Amino acid sequence: MKYLVGMDVGGTNIVCGLLDGEGRLLEKIKRPTEAHLGSEHVLEAIAQTVKTLISSRQADTRQVLAVGVGSPGLVDPEQGITLFAGNLGWHRVEVAKQLSGKLNLPVFVDNDVRMYVFGEAITGAGKGYDHVLGITLGTGVGAAVVVRGQVYYGGGFMAGELGHMRMEGEQTTCACGMRGCLETVASATGIVRQVREAVAQGKQSVLGTWFPTANLSGLTAADVSKAYDSGDRVAREVLDHTGRVLGRALAYAVTLFSPDAVVIGGGVAEAGERLLAPMREELQRSVYQGYWSRLAIRTAHWPDDAGVIGSALYAKQKVEEA
Amino acid sequence: MKYLVGMDVGGTNIVCGLLDGEGRLLEKIKRPTEAHLGSEHVLEAIAQTVKTLISSRQADTRQVLAVGVGSPGLVDPEQGITLFAGNLGWHRVEVAKQLSGKLNLPVFVDNDVRMYVFGEAITGAGKGYDHVLGITLGTGVGAAVVVRGQVYYGGGFMAGELGHMRMEGEQTTCACGMRGCLETVASATGIVRQVREAVAQGKQSVLGTWFPTANLSGLTAADVSKAYDSGDRVAREVLDHTGRVLGRALAYAVTLFSPDAVVIGGGVAEAGERLLAPMREELQRSVYQGYWSRLAIRTAHWPDDAGVIGSALYAKQKVEEA
Repeated sequence: MKYLVGMDVGGTNIVCGLLDGEGRLLEKIKRPTEAHLGSEHVLEAIAQTVKTLISSRQADTRQVLAVGVGSPGLVDPEQGITLFAGNLGWHRVEVAKQLSGKLNLPVFVDNDVRMYVFGEAITGAGKGYDHVLGITLGTGVGAAVVVRGQVYYGGGFMAGELGHMRMEGEQTTCACGMRGCLETVASATGIVRQVREAVAQGKQSVLGTWFPTANLSGLTAADVSKAYDSGDRVAREVLDHTGRVLGRALAYAVTLFSPDAVVIGGGVAEAGERLLAPMREELQRSVYQGYWSRLAIRTAHWPDDAGVIGSALYAKQKVEEA
Repeated sequence: MKYLVGMDVGGTNIVCGLLDGEGRLLEKIKRPTEAHLGSEHVLEAIAQTVKTLISSRQADTRQVLAVGVGSPGLVDPEQGITLFAGNLGWHRVEVAKQLSGKLNLPVFVDNDVRMYVFGEAITGAGKGYDHVLGITLGTGVGAAVVVRGQVYYGGGFMAGELGHMRMEGEQTTCACGMRGCLETVASATGIVRQVREAVAQGKQSVLGTWFPTANLSGLTAADVSKAYDSGDRVAREVLDHTGRVLGRALAYAVTLFSPDAVVIGGGVAEAGERLLAPMREELQRSVYQGYWSRLAIRTAHWPDDAGVIGSALYAKQKVEEA
């Protein structure tokens, strides 16, 4: 039997999966990233996790076709290097070469969002569509485009930064240095910020009661959904506004890329229709109807695993191309 | 000697060019489209023009490698059909098949903007760049992306409709049925409309003196540039505003496609720095600096001929692929 290994390296955890040769997930291990101990430590821990995973199936490393790694930040997949990943403190880490040396296996690295969208495009909610635009709404906002099974990279491997489109009327300073980026609104942090600002302005919200501490410490985007369901007006206004801003940004992406399907994943997507209904409404209003009428909008099929599955399938594609 | 034929079919004129096998333009003929006489008439006229062009060089049809046609409207290049072209009154016209029958030559058809950008990308201002975003500012606003010599089509061959991105704060109804599309601002008609509205609102402009008739009848975008140079405040405000709205739209396209070069063509681009200076300023302000620092912004190298050259080279590429 042949295997694939796929991996999603996050700022907090690494999720490492063993898949069969067709990309079906058999088993996964989650472990802390411990990025503060340095890239050498993280890569060694990844290698050990891969070995543990393989031996847990009484398998042999030689049965593994390829290893795929989804890394945060700016990645050069051709060279196999993570050029910059702020949340890991990585700068030009040769992920593919180093891991390949430790595992004696072909290793491929690409950006985590691209791998997530690749997984959804090949075998998830985008399956069967030629042009898939995938977005991830989490701590930040990411996006990628997959055309007939090939990632669209753009110059400098920098295409698809939907999260850093400046949205009219938004003023919050973004981590990137600009103001009003989509990511300052349509992310978990953006939603929490909007609620905090509303409460600070004196708006009445059940969230102020649930989180009586200064600045609603501990509040998450999931809590905002709960408040919405209890009829809270601030929660509704925030998710409504967030959905509409997201819809406007998506309208630009749809008009420029003309995808057949838009796949929406990431933790914030769990808000479901509370967020997606206003998003769709605004998107429909903001694109030529020729796009709208042919567009499928789907939530992720593998919300937790698309990154692991996608990186494994990506590695398989690369090995087969070579 | 081997030849290529390229063609730009517009609402008013058809420009037909004879090129050598490398895509160097040798000769061209311009003739009225006469679209009101129907597609059969137009295609027959095109075929006659191609024959005239070939015989003027004492050449033989058999020396022509391929014929490329840039058609306005929505084109399916795989089937060789112009699906819809409003300004020609065409609906599902089988351009490639019909012309191929008349000429006994391989004929390929694609959208005129894509062919223009293809020409600039391969042999014009975008030459040497892997990822080229080209825009044409004329009666309308068109755009296309060419990646390593391949056009990016998107689903339904509908990618790159920069002209139909709805711009915040703009309210003019567009021919597409939406309101506030970029095309209602950053086109020749958009510039003329803005001047007319300013004068109608009682703003003093030398253009009101130059065009004393009702609604400044006869006014063109070129006149607005002349007024700008004479120090006219309305002309400056209009070109300034137009440049800034264009810069904002381009910021979205740059963030999503990450081009290495942006090439700007079309008649309105003749406004030069009057338009491009505010455009660049707004673009720089609206994109992550990582894009800005690696981006080349160029005006078209073949402002008049890129469509003819591009369609000829596109036809050559298709013949070689087959």
